[in-house]
Amino acid sequence: MTAGCVVLGGGDEVSNSFASSLAASLSSPYCEVLRKVFPDGESYIRLPGEAVKASRVCVVKSLDYPQDKALVELLLTLDALREKSNAELVAVIPYMAYSRQDREFLENEAVSIRAVLRAIKSAGASELYTIEIHKEESLRHFGGRAYSVSPYEYMAGKLEIPEDSVVIAPDLGARGRAERLAKALGVDYDYLVKQRDRITGEVVFKPKELDVKGLNVIIVDDIISTGGTIAKASRILKAQGAKSIIVIVAHALLVDGAWDKIVDAGVSRVYATNTVKPRSGRPVIIDVAPVVAEYVSSS
Amino acid sequence: MTAGCVVLGGGDEVSNSFASSLAASLSSPYCEVLRKVFPDGESYIRLPGEAVKASRVCVVKSLDYPQDKALVELLLTLDALREKSNAELVAVIPYMAYSRQDREFLENEAVSIRAVLRAIKSAGASELYTIEIHKEESLRHFGGRAYSVSPYEYMAGKLEIPEDSVVIAPDLGARGRAERLAKALGVDYDYLVKQRDRITGEVVFKPKELDVKGLNVIIVDDIISTGGTIAKASRILKAQGAKSIIVIVAHALLVDGAWDKIVDAGVSRVYATNTVKPRSGRPVIIDVAPVVAEYVSSS
Repeated sequence: MTAGCVVLGGGDEVSNSFASSLAASLSSPYCEVLRKVFPDGESYIRLPGEAVKASRVCVVKSLDYPQDKALVELLLTLDALREKSNAELVAVIPYMAYSRQDREFLENEAVSIRAVLRAIKSAGASELYTIEIHKEESLRHFGGRAYSVSPYEYMAGKLEIPEDSVVIAPDLGARGRAERLAKALGVDYDYLVKQRDRITGEVVFKPKELDVKGLNVIIVDDIISTGGTIAKASRILKAQGAKSIIVIVAHALLVDGAWDKIVDAGVSRVYATNTVKPRSGRPVIIDVAPVVAEYVSSS
Repeated sequence: MTAGCVVLGGGDEVSNSFASSLAASLSSPYCEVLRKVFPDGESYIRLPGEAVKASRVCVVKSLDYPQDKALVELLLTLDALREKSNAELVAVIPYMAYSRQDREFLENEAVSIRAVLRAIKSAGASELYTIEIHKEESLRHFGGRAYSVSPYEYMAGKLEIPEDSVVIAPDLGARGRAERLAKALGVDYDYLVKQRDRITGEVVFKPKELDVKGLNVIIVDDIISTGGTIAKASRILKAQGAKSIIVIVAHALLVDGAWDKIVDAGVSRVYATNTVKPRSGRPVIIDVAPVVAEYVSSS
């Protein structure tokens, strides 16, 4: 880090808490924006003097729910910093909303993550860090230095995992996540695929190679939103004889009803990071700001 | 208008209705984006094929409550159009949120309207039309052709106004609005100022020149948000003998409780335009899309 770097909390609880931890890891000063919301719903942002005077500002703002308000507050903050200071502006976005709409699944759909990343760049950020974006290649839309930090290796050191565990991704898209976590834990991994049973001819979902019977299964994914994917995976693995199901995700949105849905499906514990405030349930939260600090400080 | 111009509704009720009326006034085709909101709160936008094929697209999106969601949906729409079409993109923003935070009232405040206008420009709009922005000079932040359309002259032709009427602005900032409306109605106008009573020495608010005793007063302003300004003006003018109070505004946000507040203060009727959906009360709504059409078609 250059001298004169400060870490600026974006004004909401999640962002300020993450920023404070990041500042401690970086041994940099912490400050936060003054944020309020007017009676008509418009946000208001005022910069602290420390941020205006710095030569480099890490603006920490999670695009947690309500995502659009968080994004607009980030744009207001970056724009104000660009006008008022000469600082290099680094956007630290613990949770990157809109990252699942990363292509036209149907013709003429907006590619939301492209619009969001471009807006953040246009508002003045020259560098961007996020945690476990849905697809890393989306970061090209930022048009500048942009990194997605994997939290799983760090999380592995903080988990209480039973013996005879195995890591399973709910689909091929999450296979790389399973691999990283499994290697850090020193256990096997696999992912669920649709298969035809060779005896009954029935189409079922199963781990591609592993037999989970009698094993403790760790399901890993980037995000739990409604819990549908995780609940389905949990039921499949339980039916195939898994002894217990633990879930590890980066972003536990857990929208209304999601917690009950996954608990009903047999999930006994969820570990998640501090990038969002879960909207239901009680996942175990692991502070991953120290991992982001390693990236920010080395670049 | 060039051939191949289409008017695109932004997907919400207010924007689609405004766009539909604008299209009719321009004799241009109307289409609308497909808009939905995912369970986690993220918006989704899909363009209609007509918009992608056009040579000029008027994207109509009011930044009505919830303002931040509306702005993000506008950015998604513009970004998608920029990628998918070669059209010239015209942003028609019936209500421009964040226009009152147009300078640093306190040091290091974000100048919200600057960030918002820059974001719209960066997303691909080359031209912008809005209705009665709080301060016209804010439009310079767009960095391109940008116009604020005055609705009062057009509204004047649609009002039922009693004899012996006079137009009063609640403060000096709204004086120009009072002048435009009064000229269109052929009546006198004035604005409220703080004055010291020459006899009692008491400090009071009064019209600068006019005596409103026995007259029907029309209070004009750009916006009613919480209703505080209008309620105060109404009480002052009633106390000075005004026979009745009618209010004319461009944007009737009327946040919760605002309607009761102004009715309690003596306001008997409110006229507003169709730029927003009022959040309380029953103002008389005048469709001003035809006024915008005159600007869009002549440029």
